[in-house]
Amino acid sequence: MRTIKLTLGYYGTGFRGWQVQPGLPSIQAEMMRALEQVTGEPVTIEPSGRTDAGVHALAQTASFTTNSAIPCENLVKAINRWLPHSIRVYSAEDREPGFHARFNAAGKIYRYRIFRQPVCPPERWRYVHHFPYPLDAAEMRAAAAAFEGTHDFTSFTSPEELPSGPRDRLIHSSRLTEDDGELVYQVHGSGFLHHMVRNVVGTLMEVGKGNLRASDIAGIIAARDRMRAGPTVPAKGLWLVEVLY
Amino acid sequence: MRTIKLTLGYYGTGFRGWQVQPGLPSIQAEMMRALEQVTGEPVTIEPSGRTDAGVHALAQTASFTTNSAIPCENLVKAINRWLPHSIRVYSAEDREPGFHARFNAAGKIYRYRIFRQPVCPPERWRYVHHFPYPLDAAEMRAAAAAFEGTHDFTSFTSPEELPSGPRDRLIHSSRLTEDDGELVYQVHGSGFLHHMVRNVVGTLMEVGKGNLRASDIAGIIAARDRMRAGPTVPAKGLWLVEVLY
Repeated sequence: MRTIKLTLGYYGTGFRGWQVQPGLPSIQAEMMRALEQVTGEPVTIEPSGRTDAGVHALAQTASFTTNSAIPCENLVKAINRWLPHSIRVYSAEDREPGFHARFNAAGKIYRYRIFRQPVCPPERWRYVHHFPYPLDAAEMRAAAAAFEGTHDFTSFTSPEELPSGPRDRLIHSSRLTEDDGELVYQVHGSGFLHHMVRNVVGTLMEVGKGNLRASDIAGIIAARDRMRAGPTVPAKGLWLVEVLY
Repeated sequence: MRTIKLTLGYYGTGFRGWQVQPGLPSIQAEMMRALEQVTGEPVTIEPSGRTDAGVHALAQTASFTTNSAIPCENLVKAINRWLPHSIRVYSAEDREPGFHARFNAAGKIYRYRIFRQPVCPPERWRYVHHFPYPLDAAEMRAAAAAFEGTHDFTSFTSPEELPSGPRDRLIHSSRLTEDDGELVYQVHGSGFLHHMVRNVVGTLMEVGKGNLRASDIAGIIAARDRMRAGPTVPAKGLWLVEVLY
């Protein structure tokens, strides 16, 4: 039995997210269907973490076990033949028995793109959150930095997150930059709670609008109260950039 | 009566092209519907030229006449409110009576994107022609340059082009560059026949594959015979970049 790690990208528009939902399009359902065609076996595939409907991935990871003897390079080609073009496997590698894309992950990098100009080009529309109104980018940058370190992120999670699970996450870097008409937030953390990145960005936007100050962030984190943080920004601006091992 | 020039972009996937076709989605139908909502009048809109199904535009132009007194800046905002996000108007300007987006155009710039790596990222799939097989880019560059100058482009048009129309076009520049995993062909000409850019690129690809040489281009042009040139490449790699006046 081999354990295989896949690296894949997807264009999230049109999918109801990673997780299989009966009768609805999902990344997982497409992956399972393709793997079954290629290996001739029913396959269970585990991602580094689920992504929500509309979220894109530049490099998600997933693992599965198989009796298939197909070499990794051929596996990539064969799986891609069975997938829609909105999902692509970039690489496959054999890993040690017991390897699991989620449990072995050491961290993740997410990016959130906010398009700032008055008119959003059609070819960029599904990849960004369009927000052409005034934002104080300098204050937002200061607020972004305030998320670095280990914190309990209860204020930034969704009601769907398990109430009993640990809420501490280590944020290695949390930065806002400007690029090609966009404000780009990039965050590297040990892991993320459900909706955490989108809620952090929603809070940064409240800072940008002047409804909060960068100096408020520490108190919002400490409050462990979802009501204190900003709203959840739209999924289509969110990109899973990399999963680190 | 005002004459207005619009500059607009569109994501061509999902449209049957510019031209209205009963019961099918088209850029023109969406534009007419939006303009009618905004001006309160039935409006005839004329593009710099039709684009085919699946072709994208970074900056198409179109003109129409109206009795509406709405200032240009507000017109842009109002039209965009009635359009799908796959079409955006970037600017509107009052022009002299008789101005026509097509007849007044002095030239156009088109771009064709060929993605070269083995796996095409899902977020780029609808914007490029994916061709990961060997191509001799140096020979293609030499062939591209051979299109510059004034030529009869009969060998590079489609059977749908009017048989009686003039076939001479002046090509100011015709160049192939490499950028971010892509071969990018960009051509600036006085005008283009139906399918001309896609047929020129199809011919350049035959050169890249070694089926033709750069030195064959002059003879293919001189033959005025569609059978001598390469096939029509897919629409989704084609971008109307700019219309010059």
